[in-house]
Amino acid sequence: MENGNGSRGDDDVGVTRPRWRFSRPSRGTQLTAAGTRSIRAVLGRLNSSVDPSETRPVVRLANGDPTATACFQTAPEAEDAVVDALRSREHNGYSNSTGEPHARSAIAEYLSRDLPYELSPDDIYLTSGCVQAVEIMISALAQPGANILLPKPGFPLYEARTMFSHLEDRHFDLIPERGWEVDLESVKALADDNTVAIVIINPGNPCGSVYSQDHLAQIAETARELGIMIIADEVYAHLAFGDRPFIPMGVFAKIAPVVTLGSISKRWLVPGWRLGWIAMCDPDGVLKEAKVDQSIQNYTNISTDPATFVQGAVPQIIDNTKQEYFNKILGLLKNSADLLFSKIKDIKGITCPHKPEGSMFVMVKLDFAALDGFSDDVDFCCRLAKEESVLVMPGTALGMKNWGRITFAIDLPSLEDGLERMKSFCARHAKVEA
Amino acid sequence: MENGNGSRGDDDVGVTRPRWRFSRPSRGTQLTAAGTRSIRAVLGRLNSSVDPSETRPVVRLANGDPTATACFQTAPEAEDAVVDALRSREHNGYSNSTGEPHARSAIAEYLSRDLPYELSPDDIYLTSGCVQAVEIMISALAQPGANILLPKPGFPLYEARTMFSHLEDRHFDLIPERGWEVDLESVKALADDNTVAIVIINPGNPCGSVYSQDHLAQIAETARELGIMIIADEVYAHLAFGDRPFIPMGVFAKIAPVVTLGSISKRWLVPGWRLGWIAMCDPDGVLKEAKVDQSIQNYTNISTDPATFVQGAVPQIIDNTKQEYFNKILGLLKNSADLLFSKIKDIKGITCPHKPEGSMFVMVKLDFAALDGFSDDVDFCCRLAKEESVLVMPGTALGMKNWGRITFAIDLPSLEDGLERMKSFCARHAKVEA
Repeated sequence: MENGNGSRGDDDVGVTRPRWRFSRPSRGTQLTAAGTRSIRAVLGRLNSSVDPSETRPVVRLANGDPTATACFQTAPEAEDAVVDALRSREHNGYSNSTGEPHARSAIAEYLSRDLPYELSPDDIYLTSGCVQAVEIMISALAQPGANILLPKPGFPLYEARTMFSHLEDRHFDLIPERGWEVDLESVKALADDNTVAIVIINPGNPCGSVYSQDHLAQIAETARELGIMIIADEVYAHLAFGDRPFIPMGVFAKIAPVVTLGSISKRWLVPGWRLGWIAMCDPDGVLKEAKVDQSIQNYTNISTDPATFVQGAVPQIIDNTKQEYFNKILGLLKNSADLLFSKIKDIKGITCPHKPEGSMFVMVKLDFAALDGFSDDVDFCCRLAKEESVLVMPGTALGMKNWGRITFAIDLPSLEDGLERMKSFCARHAKVEA
Repeated sequence: MENGNGSRGDDDVGVTRPRWRFSRPSRGTQLTAAGTRSIRAVLGRLNSSVDPSETRPVVRLANGDPTATACFQTAPEAEDAVVDALRSREHNGYSNSTGEPHARSAIAEYLSRDLPYELSPDDIYLTSGCVQAVEIMISALAQPGANILLPKPGFPLYEARTMFSHLEDRHFDLIPERGWEVDLESVKALADDNTVAIVIINPGNPCGSVYSQDHLAQIAETARELGIMIIADEVYAHLAFGDRPFIPMGVFAKIAPVVTLGSISKRWLVPGWRLGWIAMCDPDGVLKEAKVDQSIQNYTNISTDPATFVQGAVPQIIDNTKQEYFNKILGLLKNSADLLFSKIKDIKGITCPHKPEGSMFVMVKLDFAALDGFSDDVDFCCRLAKEESVLVMPGTALGMKNWGRITFAIDLPSLEDGLERMKSFCARHAKVEA
């Protein structure tokens, strides 16, 4: 091949370089804007801020992947289920576009345990993690002129996907003083005839909130009043360790139709297994009548799937994982949330308005009246990464300027170490009283 | 919960039903058109045509998933690699958006074996199967007014994704009499200033063709002349069992830049593992200069990934699979392609213009001058499914009306059975001479 056509040098392809037609400045403007708004892009910036000569371990409080920590490991039963499914050689082929029937049944049964009606396997669409569930729902709902209501602070994948799909995003506030509840008045003010859905993330990322039954019912009533569906992002389902239990939004689906997004990523601590779902909580058939199910089906026909053998393992993962495992993880999360909340109180310049009760995150406010020389939260987080090798997600990435998001899904010694370094950092940069 | 807000009946939610705002007739028109054009949608129609009272086994010659057949099983080394990666517990977390570094290195090294230059790990993006590789490339290239050149017959996912992305598709002919080579004159006639890329599928799906070095070089020269990049779909790479070896398009990347799409799905017979890649074969940096790599990176930032532990297994899958395994699979494919080609000759009403030399498929022409009462290929295939429980993909789904696509990646007895039934079917429906 060396002297074949493939290796012809610059000399023999002609003096004039071709004008390559794909070299246009306008290409991918939306995509660039969408891609650079993602959590992954921000994480890249934080990581590159870390001083390469640092000898202390990097404390990663920016993203919610606890699998690097020895104490946050998945249930052995779940791992065995995947190995068994793979070894069976029955799940190496393509799956149905909506997912393997046994897995869909198992998830329908699993979710129905907490609902006042039964989901059918046909209500479930398996997705490659909750990321693809978001992609599918946004793609299925996008159409010229439509808009969608997103929480602020929120999870920037929604903004990125709506931007990419030319769906307009409008932001309603979550109120820190009210346990990060939805500001329903701002929801009503934002909605118009072109609004198609509201996204509710409960347990809350990035706020660590868990909504009460009353608040969930109010959200449903508001959605009904506005004539919009609820997209209930419950990727942190069951990760509630405070006073309030986790209640699925689907409980209120007779008030307004609910599309629930979930995954095994968080409860089973396996984000890398890429197994999520969309559940149509639609007991009155409102979404079916509007052919939302058809739009989802159409999108799944032209997109990828979770690995078939992971799908094949789902019934055993659900059946075999013991309650003690879930209890242990909840206990770990509670302990580290407690440590975080009490330690933050000792840091001048950072405040935490609401003790985390669920998920793996909490939002903290940066008080630049007490800190010196930071232009904003991004500057704060990049310098924290550079000087202390502690990674915290800047609130700007989540829609809340001059706030930060911290995960507590990490072992206690690392969390304590990270918070101590944040304390030193803030002390070093404290504003000197005039 | 029974008597909570969630279970309120129709009586107490008010007499007037809300006007749900997402119930619009216009929603998802593009998506509907895209989704219903997919292979999966057509397979659904064929499956539902099968007579439920049929007692003979259904012979599935429509899609290319050989894993249902005992003889087409993956290498034990590949299965062990995945189990080891899972059991290590080192690959349960999120991966980088572009893929795990070791896996990217392993694929760069694997592909470079057949190229006159070295790919770097940074040239490789891991994808959730080749399906997501297509999604990413089409999404990265789409912009208002742009068009892309697709083969006819081809693989309908390209049409579905271009339609969904509002990228215009234009079709060039593959010429059956010339071993399904690209009609380069039709390519030149189709291209204009808004053309961004040409898609080449080699080894060919649906034609079973394997292109010569000369033809590949001609394609590259044509792309250079037109100033467009080549998207080389090589998901069937190395599955060449005729006289001609498989030569990657990337060999000619100094003539015109090549983006190669690949996966372990076909060579390792594991389509359900969902591990594919995009390889930028760009030795002169033309694609980098046009920031195509940035567009790909941006899209991977907002989309899902292959399961991390499957990525973690890639180096071992590549290193440990023995040449004898690949030889065995090639031998099986050659035998069944030979059987298919010789048996088709005995069927009046079906002709095969070119003996398959690669991939898992061949195109056959339906001669309606010799057959009675069929309106077209879709009618033929649906009635074949109904009367004989033999599934063949109608050519219309691949852009070739009154042709059909048959897979030979199936065990010999089933293939022979299917072809016998097709022979009976055609004999039963033969046109009686006037």
